[in-house]
Parts: sequence; C-alpha cells; structure tokens
Amino acid sequence: MLNPCDTAFLETLAALLPPDTLRPPAPRYLEEPRGLWQGQAGAVALPRSTEEVAVIVRAAAQARVGLVPYGGGTALVGGQVMPDGPLPLILSLERMNRLREVSVEDAVLVAEAGATLQSVQEAAAAAGRIFPLSLASEGTATIGGNLSTNAGGTAVLRYGNARELCLGLEAVLADGTIWHGLKRLRKDNTGYDLRGLLIGAEGTLGVITAATLRLFPQPAHRLVALLVVPSPKAAQELLALAEARLSGLVTAFELIRGTGLDFLAEVGPEVRMPFAERPDWSVLVELGLPQAMEPELALASLYEEAADAGLVLDGVIANSETQAHELWALRESIPEANRRIGAISSHDISLPLSSIPAFLTEVEAALTAQAAVRINAFGHLGDGNLHVNIFPNPGRSRQDYAAQRGDLQRLMHDLVAAMGGSISAEHGIGRGKVVELERYGDPARLAAMRAIKQALDPQGIMNPGAVLRLP
Amino acid sequence: MLNPCDTAFLETLAALLPPDTLRPPAPRYLEEPRGLWQGQAGAVALPRSTEEVAVIVRAAAQARVGLVPYGGGTALVGGQVMPDGPLPLILSLERMNRLREVSVEDAVLVAEAGATLQSVQEAAAAAGRIFPLSLASEGTATIGGNLSTNAGGTAVLRYGNARELCLGLEAVLADGTIWHGLKRLRKDNTGYDLRGLLIGAEGTLGVITAATLRLFPQPAHRLVALLVVPSPKAAQELLALAEARLSGLVTAFELIRGTGLDFLAEVGPEVRMPFAERPDWSVLVELGLPQAMEPELALASLYEEAADAGLVLDGVIANSETQAHELWALRESIPEANRRIGAISSHDISLPLSSIPAFLTEVEAALTAQAAVRINAFGHLGDGNLHVNIFPNPGRSRQDYAAQRGDLQRLMHDLVAAMGGSISAEHGIGRGKVVELERYGDPARLAAMRAIKQALDPQGIMNPGAVLRLP
Repeated sequence: MLNPCDTAFLETLAALLPPDTLRPPAPRYLEEPRGLWQGQAGAVALPRSTEEVAVIVRAAAQARVGLVPYGGGTALVGGQVMPDGPLPLILSLERMNRLREVSVEDAVLVAEAGATLQSVQEAAAAAGRIFPLSLASEGTATIGGNLSTNAGGTAVLRYGNARELCLGLEAVLADGTIWHGLKRLRKDNTGYDLRGLLIGAEGTLGVITAATLRLFPQPAHRLVALLVVPSPKAAQELLALAEARLSGLVTAFELIRGTGLDFLAEVGPEVRMPFAERPDWSVLVELGLPQAMEPELALASLYEEAADAGLVLDGVIANSETQAHELWALRESIPEANRRIGAISSHDISLPLSSIPAFLTEVEAALTAQAAVRINAFGHLGDGNLHVNIFPNPGRSRQDYAAQRGDLQRLMHDLVAAMGGSISAEHGIGRGKVVELERYGDPARLAAMRAIKQALDPQGIMNPGAVLRLP
Repeated sequence: MLNPCDTAFLETLAALLPPDTLRPPAPRYLEEPRGLWQGQAGAVALPRSTEEVAVIVRAAAQARVGLVPYGGGTALVGGQVMPDGPLPLILSLERMNRLREVSVEDAVLVAEAGATLQSVQEAAAAAGRIFPLSLASEGTATIGGNLSTNAGGTAVLRYGNARELCLGLEAVLADGTIWHGLKRLRKDNTGYDLRGLLIGAEGTLGVITAATLRLFPQPAHRLVALLVVPSPKAAQELLALAEARLSGLVTAFELIRGTGLDFLAEVGPEVRMPFAERPDWSVLVELGLPQAMEPELALASLYEEAADAGLVLDGVIANSETQAHELWALRESIPEANRRIGAISSHDISLPLSSIPAFLTEVEAALTAQAAVRINAFGHLGDGNLHVNIFPNPGRSRQDYAAQRGDLQRLMHDLVAAMGGSISAEHGIGRGKVVELERYGDPARLAAMRAIKQALDPQGIMNPGAVLRLP
C-alpha cells in the first residue's frame, strides 16, 4: 500500500534538493484535455537534471509515495492525472527541455524528456533534416510523453511510431538508479529490449529523462493532394496502389468522411472547402519524393491509373506550400469540429487494413440500430488507425445519451476485438482504458505485464493505477 | 537448480505427446557453425503444433528441466547449444514450418517459427511482395531464430531489424501458457511491448511459435553498383549524400575492404573482380526505386555529384540481374574467404556512423602494435555495423596467436565501448558473449534484465545460461 505525499515526505525531500524544486500543484497539473478526470497531488516536483530525478525517485521509493510523471499534459486517456488513491507527487519534466545535441553525421538528435515535440522538429529542420513524428498537440506535447505513450500521428505509415524513431534512452528506474542508455546505433543486440519496454509503458516502469531520436533527410519534394474516393474500400485499394508505385514514399494517407466536412460547415472552424460538392469519402495524401523524381508527373501518373481503376473520382493537388497547409488544415480541423458538436463517445481504434470497409459498414449499422446517433470516422487509414466518434443526432445533446453511452462503447469495442483490431491504437491505456484492457487483452500477455510491473517496480510507486489496476 | 532431462522425465513427457515427438539428439543439434562449443542434451523434442509446445514447456516447468529452443542452428554465439549444466531438452521447431497465411491486402504473412527465412521470402515473392530481411544463412535460418535474435542483415538501412518487421507473435511463455498475439496492426498501444521483449531475448523468456511478418511492395527497379571510394570517411559521406538525394530508397550500403579482396584472390572462392586494380575501399550499393524514376539517370546524377565532391573514384553498375548477382557474390564470398584464411578473432560490432573512420584507423594501429596481425573490416556500413576480423600475418596460423587472442579481443571491445558502440550488433549474446555483456553493459539495464528474467521465467528453464549467466 502506498503512502500519501504528505508534509513530512515533502520536508524530507526538500532537504535533498535545491530550493524551488517542489511546489504546490497548480491547477493545470490536475486537469486533462477531455475534462473526464480531476487529478490530485501533494505537490509537483520540477527537477533540473537527471540526478535530481534520481533523488526524487529514490526518496519516493524509500517512503513508498506514488509518482505521476508529467510531460505536456495532452494525453487523452488520463495517464497524467491520478484522481484517487493516496496523494501522489507529480514529477514534471518541464525544466529538462534541453536539446543536448544535434548530429547530422550520426543522423540523431538527443533531447531531454521535457522538450516539446515541436522544438525537436524545429531543431531538426534547422539542421536540414526532419524528425518525422507529427501530431496535433506537438506544440505542447513533450518527447518524454511521446515516447512514454509510443505516440503515433500522421507519418507512421512511412517512418513508424515513436518506438521506431528512438535509438536510445536515459531513464530513472523505479529504484532510483539511472540507466545511461543514450546509444545511437541502428543495430545493437546486447540483451533484452529495455528501450522498447519503457517506450509505451506510460511511466509505470520508470521515468524517461532523455532520448536519442532518429533524424531523416528532408524529401526534395513534398506533394499534398486531396482525392475524392467512391468508398473506404477504394481508398484502401488506392493506398495499396500508391505504395506499390511509389515504394514507400507515401508519408501520410488520411481518411476524411463527409460527416466531418458537414460538421465543419455546421460549427466551424472555418476552412476552405476545395470541392463544390461535399464528398462522402476523401483522402488526404502526402508524398515526400526524392530530387530525381518529377513530383507532378508521378502524381499525375498515379492519379490516371487510379481513375482508370475507378478508385478516384476527383481531386485537388496543392501547388504551393499555402495550399498544402490549407488541405492539411481541413483534416486537422475535424477534431475541433467534433469537439464543438460534442461526441457521445470517442474511439481510437485500429484494424487490419482489409477489415476497415466491413467494419465501417457494420459499426454504423449496429450503432444506429441501437440509438439515434451519427458516426464520424477519420484518421490514419494508412496505418489502419481510425478515430471513430459517436455523435448525437441534430437537435439532441450528448447528455441525452448518458444512459446509452456504455452500451455503445461496448458494441464498438466488441466489433473491433472480433475483427482482430485494437481498442487503443495510439493514445495508450492511461487510466481510462484499464478495464477495457482487462476485458479485451490476451490473458497470458496481461499476466506477463503484471509480472514485469512487479519485477521493475515492486512497490508500485510509478504512475500508480495507469495501464494496470492497483494491486 | 535445474534437474537433468533424464529417462524418468522423458517417459513422463512421452506419455503426454503423440509418438515420435521425442528423439535422441542427432549430432547436428549439438554442433554450431564455428565449432567453438559442443552441446549436450537428454533428447530433442519435435512438436507439430503450438499446443504440443505448450505441453512440453508445462512439463519442463513442472520438472524444472532446462529447454533449449532450436531453429536452423546457424547462430554464431552459441545461443543454440548448451555445453554444460544439467542435461537440457532441445526444443526444435522444425516441424512447425507452415506459412499459415499470406495477405496482400493486410500486407502481412503469418509464418510458423520453423519456416526458413528463404521460404518466407519466396512466399512473399510469389504474392508480388517482398519480405526484406536478408542474410547469408537465410536458406537454413528460421523465422523463430531470426526473431529470437532480432536478426539484422543487409537491408536494415531501409527496412529495419527483425523486430521492426514483425507485427505480432504467438509464443509459449515459461509457465506453458500460450500468448495468442498474432495481431497485424501498425498501431496498437495497449500495454507493454511484450512482442519487442521476446524478440531478441534468444529464447530465454519464452518460445516464439509463430509470427505476423510485414510485407512490402517490390521496388519497380533494383539497381546494384560497386563504387570505389578513397576512404571510409568518403564512404560515410557518400551514404549521407545518397540518403539525402534518394529519400530512403537506399536498400543496402556495404563496405568492402581491400584485404577482403586480397583474401578472395589468395584462397577463393573464385569471383570475378570488376576492377583492374584492387581498390582499398569500395562500397556495394543497392537501390530500390519506384516506377516513376529513371534508375540509370538517378544513379548517374548521384555518381556525378559524388565524384565532383571527391567521394567516388570509380564504379561499375550492374546492367543485368546476372551482374547484380555477381557484385553481391563478391560481397557475400568475403566471409567464406575469411574462414579459409582462419580468423584469430571475429567481431560483430556497431558504432555511431561518425566514429567509424576514426575507429578503423585506431583499431588497426592498436592491434598491429600489439601483435603481427592483419585486419579485415567489412559489412553493413549503412547501419554502422561492421564485421571486424583479426587474421594471422601470411605464413602464420591462428593457433600461433592463441595466447594473444584474449588481449586482442579486449583491446577491440574496449575501443568499441569507448566510442559508444556495441559489442554485438546483430549476432546477439548467446553463451559466447555473456561475460562481455557483464563487462560492458550498463549496470541498471543489466539489473532490469535479470529482474525481467526472474519475473517471466522464475525457474530459469528457458535456454539456461544464454544472455544471462545461470544464477
């Protein structure tokens, strides 16, 4: 059983640290973007160095006080807020935001955990390279949080998830020892993959303090197009065609449903619609091409072949950076329109690519048979990852559906599980999906996860109650 | 303490399994390619299904008998042979070699652990796709072994290691429970990365029985060239240039040292030398380009730019599949020539890309100052992974250096460690590098590895003594 982060503990800890490392928790540390959970904490610790993090973790281990690691606070499943249990200490990495090194020769950047994703992207760009991780909250979300949640986003199709973009870690383990693992090697088979294990563990096995991140060359040509497709099945076939013709040069392939465009027209934010008639299904495609390719030619030839096969009905190609931004703005405004409409329930799911068309048909039929709702599905079709949200019919509000919410969620997740999908593609488990993980997770894997947690954090001080239920 | 795989255990086990599942161990199961270790075993088990593997593991767990998982037997560090300790049971997956499914739509192939890498490559090709893992022993090595050792090879630069090529696993854990984890999702953030942990664990945490492997489109054009470079530094700059100009379309980038070509001329195997004068340093480059690219133009333009910058001195471009094979044969014959010469010591190391030129100079100076030896360094420069082997001077044999071998190895590994490299880039730890891992590994990481081993295999029955010393 954990002890609360009380005055006695804080006094002991303060004596081990420079002044102004511990503070009362400002309200922002106790809130989260969806307003579903209200956190609590005895204090927030703001260490300046890995050594200070180690001092804090050692003291917490000795006193059996829970620690909640805190990055940018943008997580959507409650991994960063602890609403109940003995008062924890929040461990914010915000002061550790240095970019320790950018090496073009080694194609890496070493960032401290508190650096925002955007600051990393900018440092990479300043060195003529890209760090390809890209997601809506990148201005606030931190590298430590991105790695702890194995963040996905829009460029996974080409570059992989956060786990694939990280070559090495520095971390403080649950007993307060520091793992100095900031390697920068593409191949290193010297034992168990502790790096991959801490990535995606949501702070429950240790605290990531710094990471070696992979840099990639900037493609010579960036090409963005919005293509109207007759169906999700056609979108999926278009993706296969583009991948085959372009050998891995497709950076993003995002599905947009007509419902999303209706929402934008209904509640904003205001964005320019590139088509006279609102398409039922469209895809935002981004290509990153090498110097020796003629980008317009490559896209024209792909478009022609796709049109001949009936996979594309219409399309616009951005012919300036401004237009490219406008097309992306359309895609990226949909979550805000969704928020303004007010979802009854939001789902971050993934499926085998081939199951997506059937899933979209079946889930809509099943949900609308159960309740008077509208569905919006959009997102990273290239990764089989869709954000499928359930909305009230016009004239009704989400509160009207309070009694049905649980059943609708169950229906959605049962269908996802039956089709071999995931109930959390990129947002993680946090505290919001612990029960869902218990329901849908493989029992042997869950037992292994519990054994690993017990082995690496025997006192259960690291982000208590996230990913796995409190024992 | 483990118990031996004795007659009583084998009788109990036989009663639980169909006839002919257990056999006396044929000599091939007790040998390994380098002849450094001689294995021992009470029997070999040849299960036909995952359920039979589970029966065997449960029985071994109950009797505390060690299990040595066995794939193609091609490992170079002794992970597949147990030379001492209580007699183990060898668990060979050779009967489980089915390809359960090839899905072009989902871009995956589901293979049982005993399928050879080559059979997987061929099934992918038959479906018009590629499975990009590629290594010298692919005709014999199995997918289970490839994954258990996180195999690397020649296409990691573009496609990643075995870990990045696998989306899901089926495995029997050390208590005999089956983990049904054959997902086929690009994004699935539902808890700890057990998949990544079992991959590279060399059979010490469980037995992989099947895997979902990623398929990729076949590039429209394959282009192979052998380029003469003035130095390793120039080779490294040429790689950076090629990556920048070709945005990730470089499939392989292999360094060849003049010494290797000398060895080929001296002892064979006979291969066609494409240059009149034997170059000191050359690189084998393979590009996989999309349809819309003119391959000869792309390479010519790259060559011109590189030549202007003084990075390339000469080159040949394969203009047929036969010539491409010939150039690859040159590269792939070097290990055989090395064997014929007889290395004093072989090293599979990786380094930060920027350190490679200095390492090659320093290691040669240090080794030749210590003993009258020759060095051959070759391999996957694109991944920072070199095979650096130490050879006797002409007229002497490896036996003459028996007394110096340990010191030379230490010198090499000390330098690798000092430069932030890895003492095992792609071959793993097995039993041959357990002591080296203890010497060079980070203490916090080693402690975490031991805790994980204890948590997932508390009796220590899974591949005892591999990766981690017997407790």
